[in-house]
Amino acid sequence: MEVVADHGVAGTTHRRIAAAADVPLGSLTYHFDGLGDLLAQAFRRHAERMSRAYAAAFDGVETRDQLIDAVTDLIHGDADADPRDWAVAYELYLAALRDPALRSVTESWMRTSRSVLERFMDPTTARGIDALIEGLVMHRTLSTTAGASRAATREIIARQLGATP
Amino acid sequence: MEVVADHGVAGTTHRRIAAAADVPLGSLTYHFDGLGDLLAQAFRRHAERMSRAYAAAFDGVETRDQLIDAVTDLIHGDADADPRDWAVAYELYLAALRDPALRSVTESWMRTSRSVLERFMDPTTARGIDALIEGLVMHRTLSTTAGASRAATREIIARQLGATP
Repeated sequence: MEVVADHGVAGTTHRRIAAAADVPLGSLTYHFDGLGDLLAQAFRRHAERMSRAYAAAFDGVETRDQLIDAVTDLIHGDADADPRDWAVAYELYLAALRDPALRSVTESWMRTSRSVLERFMDPTTARGIDALIEGLVMHRTLSTTAGASRAATREIIARQLGATP
Repeated sequence: MEVVADHGVAGTTHRRIAAAADVPLGSLTYHFDGLGDLLAQAFRRHAERMSRAYAAAFDGVETRDQLIDAVTDLIHGDADADPRDWAVAYELYLAALRDPALRSVTESWMRTSRSVLERFMDPTTARGIDALIEGLVMHRTLSTTAGASRAATREIIARQLGATP
């Protein structure tokens, strides 16, 4: 994933991975069924790590205000995911668009995120909140200016939660 | 943009562009200040075309129900943007993450989208709706299953619009 973060999927080669992992080139071809297999396994691990960070952001949440705070923290990057992690995530999204086999990774990631949210809200609201997290993070990442303020984000999330307690 | 859709930014070369455009290789180096300049101009045109499609989706919208329909159509792909267009958009997003110069393209695209929405709602709501469009489209694109139904999308959008008339 470090190699993907630095060079993108397109610039990821057996040679660069072997150098980053400090292992002989031959061990990669021995242990993995090609670069596609290696990338799929690495992306799966990354998705699982991001899922754990996502779930951890909601640890101890009990009230509606704490729920809004947890989602806002996740969007504004106070949670355990940095811009480099999102870059790798977008590499995965793009790779999944081109390679349907990777869609099982993105699909199970999305399902995990939604099931975390569904502990606090109905399935449709969970889809909305998850989409807001995705879209607001993306728009912050792609903005040269500040993007939405924390206050605006809180208002957007609160509105989507509606009457959710 | 056809070359980017087929090969990604990483696989985009002067040679492939010249072949796709059926022009001599030399004319590209004559007219553009390198591949970065060519890509930036192409992405800008793509973003402008996507912005026009986005704006056109709201033509003739007068009532709250029509507004919800227009946003839902945009998300469910009945509007004038196909999966190939989104793939190019994600190529741009990823390229912009790596190259801050491209962020002026993504920033102006986002500003245009929001200003279209702001004809119908306040700026914070516009940020929320624009993020929902981004996130829901992305989650549909990355899903092996159907993603949100039109009914669920309508409910999510309606909730975000709140009391917006």
